[in-house]
Amino acid sequence: MTTFLKFSANINTFNACADRYVLSGYGERLSVDQMIDAATQVEGLTGVEVVGLWHVNDENVNQVNRRIHDAGLEVTCVTPDIWAQAKWGKGSFASNDPAIRRAAIQEVKKSMEWAKQMNCEVVDLWFGQDGYDYPFQADFIAGWQRIIEGTIECDEHLPEIKIVIEYKPKEPRTHCFIGTVGNTLLLLQQVNKPNVGAMIDVGHALMAYEDAAESAALLQHFGNKLFYMHFNDNWRLWDDDMTVGSVHTVELLELVYWLDRINYNGWYALDIFPYRENGVRAATESIKWIQAAHNLLDKIGRDRIANVLQTGDALEASAMIREAIS
Amino acid sequence: MTTFLKFSANINTFNACADRYVLSGYGERLSVDQMIDAATQVEGLTGVEVVGLWHVNDENVNQVNRRIHDAGLEVTCVTPDIWAQAKWGKGSFASNDPAIRRAAIQEVKKSMEWAKQMNCEVVDLWFGQDGYDYPFQADFIAGWQRIIEGTIECDEHLPEIKIVIEYKPKEPRTHCFIGTVGNTLLLLQQVNKPNVGAMIDVGHALMAYEDAAESAALLQHFGNKLFYMHFNDNWRLWDDDMTVGSVHTVELLELVYWLDRINYNGWYALDIFPYRENGVRAATESIKWIQAAHNLLDKIGRDRIANVLQTGDALEASAMIREAIS
Amino acid sequence: MTTFLKFSANINTFNACADRYVLSGYGERLSVDQMIDAATQVEGLTGVEVVGLWHVNDENVNQVNRRIHDAGLEVTCVTPDIWAQAKWGKGSFASNDPAIRRAAIQEVKKSMEWAKQMNCEVVDLWFGQDGYDYPFQADFIAGWQRIIEGTIECDEHLPEIKIVIEYKPKEPRTHCFIGTVGNTLLLLQQVNKPNVGAMIDVGHALMAYEDAAESAALLQHFGNKLFYMHFNDNWRLWDDDMTVGSVHTVELLELVYWLDRINYNGWYALDIFPYRENGVRAATESIKWIQAAHNLLDKIGRDRIANVLQTGDALEASAMIREAIS
Amino acid sequence: MTTFLKFSANINTFNACADRYVLSGYGERLSVDQMIDAATQVEGLTGVEVVGLWHVNDENVNQVNRRIHDAGLEVTCVTPDIWAQAKWGKGSFASNDPAIRRAAIQEVKKSMEWAKQMNCEVVDLWFGQDGYDYPFQADFIAGWQRIIEGTIECDEHLPEIKIVIEYKPKEPRTHCFIGTVGNTLLLLQQVNKPNVGAMIDVGHALMAYEDAAESAALLQHFGNKLFYMHFNDNWRLWDDDMTVGSVHTVELLELVYWLDRINYNGWYALDIFPYRENGVRAATESIKWIQAAHNLLDKIGRDRIANVLQTGDALEASAMIREAIS
Repeated sequence: MTTFLKFSANINTFNACADRYVLSGYGERLSVDQMIDAATQVEGLTGVEVVGLWHVNDENVNQVNRRIHDAGLEVTCVTPDIWAQAKWGKGSFASNDPAIRRAAIQEVKKSMEWAKQMNCEVVDLWFGQDGYDYPFQADFIAGWQRIIEGTIECDEHLPEIKIVIEYKPKEPRTHCFIGTVGNTLLLLQQVNKPNVGAMIDVGHALMAYEDAAESAALLQHFGNKLFYMHFNDNWRLWDDDMTVGSVHTVELLELVYWLDRINYNGWYALDIFPYRENGVRAATESIKWIQAAHNLLDKIGRDRIANVLQTGDALEASAMIREAIS
Repeated sequence: MTTFLKFSANINTFNACADRYVLSGYGERLSVDQMIDAATQVEGLTGVEVVGLWHVNDENVNQVNRRIHDAGLEVTCVTPDIWAQAKWGKGSFASNDPAIRRAAIQEVKKSMEWAKQMNCEVVDLWFGQDGYDYPFQADFIAGWQRIIEGTIECDEHLPEIKIVIEYKPKEPRTHCFIGTVGNTLLLLQQVNKPNVGAMIDVGHALMAYEDAAESAALLQHFGNKLFYMHFNDNWRLWDDDMTVGSVHTVELLELVYWLDRINYNGWYALDIFPYRENGVRAATESIKWIQAAHNLLDKIGRDRIANVLQTGDALEASAMIREAIS
Repeated sequence: MTTFLKFSANINTFNACADRYVLSGYGERLSVDQMIDAATQVEGLTGVEVVGLWHVNDENVNQVNRRIHDAGLEVTCVTPDIWAQAKWGKGSFASNDPAIRRAAIQEVKKSMEWAKQMNCEVVDLWFGQDGYDYPFQADFIAGWQRIIEGTIECDEHLPEIKIVIEYKPKEPRTHCFIGTVGNTLLLLQQVNKPNVGAMIDVGHALMAYEDAAESAALLQHFGNKLFYMHFNDNWRLWDDDMTVGSVHTVELLELVYWLDRINYNGWYALDIFPYRENGVRAATESIKWIQAAHNLLDKIGRDRIANVLQTGDALEASAMIREAIS
Repeated sequence: MTTFLKFSANINTFNACADRYVLSGYGERLSVDQMIDAATQVEGLTGVEVVGLWHVNDENVNQVNRRIHDAGLEVTCVTPDIWAQAKWGKGSFASNDPAIRRAAIQEVKKSMEWAKQMNCEVVDLWFGQDGYDYPFQADFIAGWQRIIEGTIECDEHLPEIKIVIEYKPKEPRTHCFIGTVGNTLLLLQQVNKPNVGAMIDVGHALMAYEDAAESAALLQHFGNKLFYMHFNDNWRLWDDDMTVGSVHTVELLELVYWLDRINYNGWYALDIFPYRENGVRAATESIKWIQAAHNLLDKIGRDRIANVLQTGDALEASAMIREAIS
């Protein structure tokens, strides 16, 4: 088996990570150039993601693009910032305020344009602020309709750019509208555009009590809609954004197996928050885990796995994992 | 406001409840006739649900129907047993064994026929055994395809009977395929039949970290697919099947409000397991809670609520609840 | 019933709240003076908490104290900052680095001195950074021993100041050593000092699947160790720090009932993060909810409640709540 | 490294498992003799647990003992049934009914006697029914006091028998009094008897968001109180009682490492519910996983692990696991 996996990471991986207590971050603040330099130190990494406004804007897009390509990397995703400023606090596409909705859509269009200028295929729509915190706070239907309409408008702006919906059940809102793989498929069906698909962030799937492998299979089977993958790990109840493989070994194996089986050929991107760790080491270790998972699957044999799935024999499934890692 | 709510309960509510430790049940075992008698003692209850094979079969269907109607009740739902026998342990519609799939579909068709004979509109499809327990145990795509095909076949058997999909994220399997409102909408879209819709079991929604009010709104907005409601309560992490209103007061209010707002006019059915409580008292108390919720909404005023939803003001939302209950 | 409840709030309640996405905060940044002014606008609020270094230090302690008292408030708690700077990222009292441990203990002693200078009885020890994120990262025993020793040292520095241990199962670490009421009682027993006790943060208890009322009863029954209370609410899985009463109505009632029953006579302090709400309104609404809960208990009658607890009749318990709020 | 691990399993492992839906069980019902025979087919198994009344009673204790020893096994634990009959539904030791409390204590004393007659050191006290389901249902303090007193009385009946407290946060009650490792340590301290200690059921610890390795370390460090271990696995939110190693690989490694480090030399007992699996195969696979974990630890080297724990380097921790299983 010689599947070639393409690895990417948001360049912010290498910057100081902050949480709501240590707002200035646990590590060192880097410039964009320093982050790109850091990315080059990660063995196996050939792509990077950038965030609109944080890393690219109308002024610097060509320069940043050049820097990235000079560093031997390509841009795999541009993520518009529609969730990290106070003005998005009560929603972006789903805001009750039409001016905010307009600004958010505009922000996404900008990122689509920057993506195009950087030869990047993918823009990531994460509706983290679109939802609600309290009971009796949201008109669910109005919220959903606005998200559908805004997404269509963005797609039509530059239909050649792939928009990937990144679902997450909560945080920063206690409830996000686009929270599960099923809700994502509903949104995709309503939007109904060939280049609007989904990404799975593994940690978000875990938080939703999903098996990421199953979610990937559903997205592919019902419309070939798995366009992108974000890898990380957590303790299943919160988006801890830990390094890949650190907690859920078997589920990582199952996911990587299914990505091959459903012919996923997109990027294996990292979305980790190495709060107290070095970003280069954290990304390197994460990639090694994905590669190790791949190698273990080869060792087990894809045919053996397919046979086990066909029988549904849980103990044979357990034994094959055990034997492979022993 | 004079909305008339129709209350129903599974007649099993009045029978001894068992769990995996006390297999013989905590209470007294009753005959079907005794359960029907018990149902008549619940103030406000005008409907009952029955389970196929447990309570009705080819032999007794007319007699049971007569008993129920003589008791002044109507049958609101027939639930085929495709989850309470050892043979369904590895799946019903999604089983790897074609003979089991066939048997399960046959069981559902039978229940549809019994429903028709009893002038009951609704048959409840709960795929509790269709899923998996262990990693690397399931072929997700095969499972989903089989559920889709089986559901279509059932609908075509008697298209005048409403089939309601009852989703639940887990139990008895650790992972059920049809686990969330989003997955349910995906299934409904694939099945694509006017009389195949959904029910929300409030406790199942809570387990899935859904706001049941939001799930109800989605099902109605995207196709008028909310056909039925099961009420109960739990501690949000497991299907504790507690009496209505016992834990989540505010969310009950929000749900009842939205059911009116989206013009839900189906049954308010109870699905509780009063393990250590008297079934008649438990059902009575549950109905009183739903009525109390309704009255509180009237007291607040539906217009005030609509205004709060439009502004998204969490503190005004909180205050209006507080004032109503003070 | 004329229990007089004393309400307090951290003055930071009135400042902009930030999360890991919106690091600059959702609202307006205020000076300490402005926060104190804001506190005076909250009806019923007579106390405030301050954070060491953030609000008080050696230079300004007298001045801040005067400002607070001039505003008609008293200082109810000083919380040393041993969790909001990058240097505490891998632990404070439990750090592997003796210099960090020393610095953390020193920070606590400082806050104890400031508390004394401000006539404040209580210092809050929250070991948010003392734990671990990853498997195989922590020597649990070393960590616990260091926390025990550091706490003893602090107590002996100024034994007249009450130290309250604030437990929390996770965040900012994925696992905190002092995470549950049981672990807290273990720590208190090991420390074994009359003025070292506990506080319950209601949201932390909810996250730990505790019933806060039960936790309060345990702390009081086993040594009169409930010294302080932090009120807020959440969705049971994360420390959402929502306004009091917004989600868990019945559990709030049960908690307030038990606080009286066990003769808790400390402060009813708010620990909320009104990210997208106005702090003065959020605090006001929270206090009104606690008062409303109190009034509902009076309406039900403490004797009736005591009787229900003695019988353990869940349906009578449910009915008494329902009747009170109807 | 040549640690010799002693494996045990409840003989019920080999009997049909039931849940609240399939009350008659998914598999085949066996006689006690057949269960003992099944146990002999599990490679590496040298001990068995029995349940009082289910498997042993005054009449058959000698005969069952002989059968077990003739089969080459020893009895490692007797578990009194104070949770599987309707009469225990509202509590055993903590029941409001003094007659029930008396009966429960009597039941435990019986099991202690049977244990003694079978040369078994350990009796397992699991207070599964002692807690509450609903808010305002329990007098927490009365409940705890009764558990303390009952446990003391049992210990004094036969002080030479080790009583192990098996904590679990919920099920069958929605809240159990003795739910966490911290609460267990509190109980042990109140009981204060040398032969009253604890067991950790790994799945119960996972449900409580505990790291079982940490819980084991705490029990040993604070009084050498870890007397027994129950192994299984689950999805972290419910007591799924799955085979060992099926989900949480890394945490299993960490636990097994710490059991050695703290000199645990008790039994490695299985407490699994192989609902849809063959019991002999499920037990065999579980033992192989524990052995595989042990071998992996040897491969990594205990010194390397100790060093990593001392530095707290999460990425080195991750790398050492990855390298071992690759």
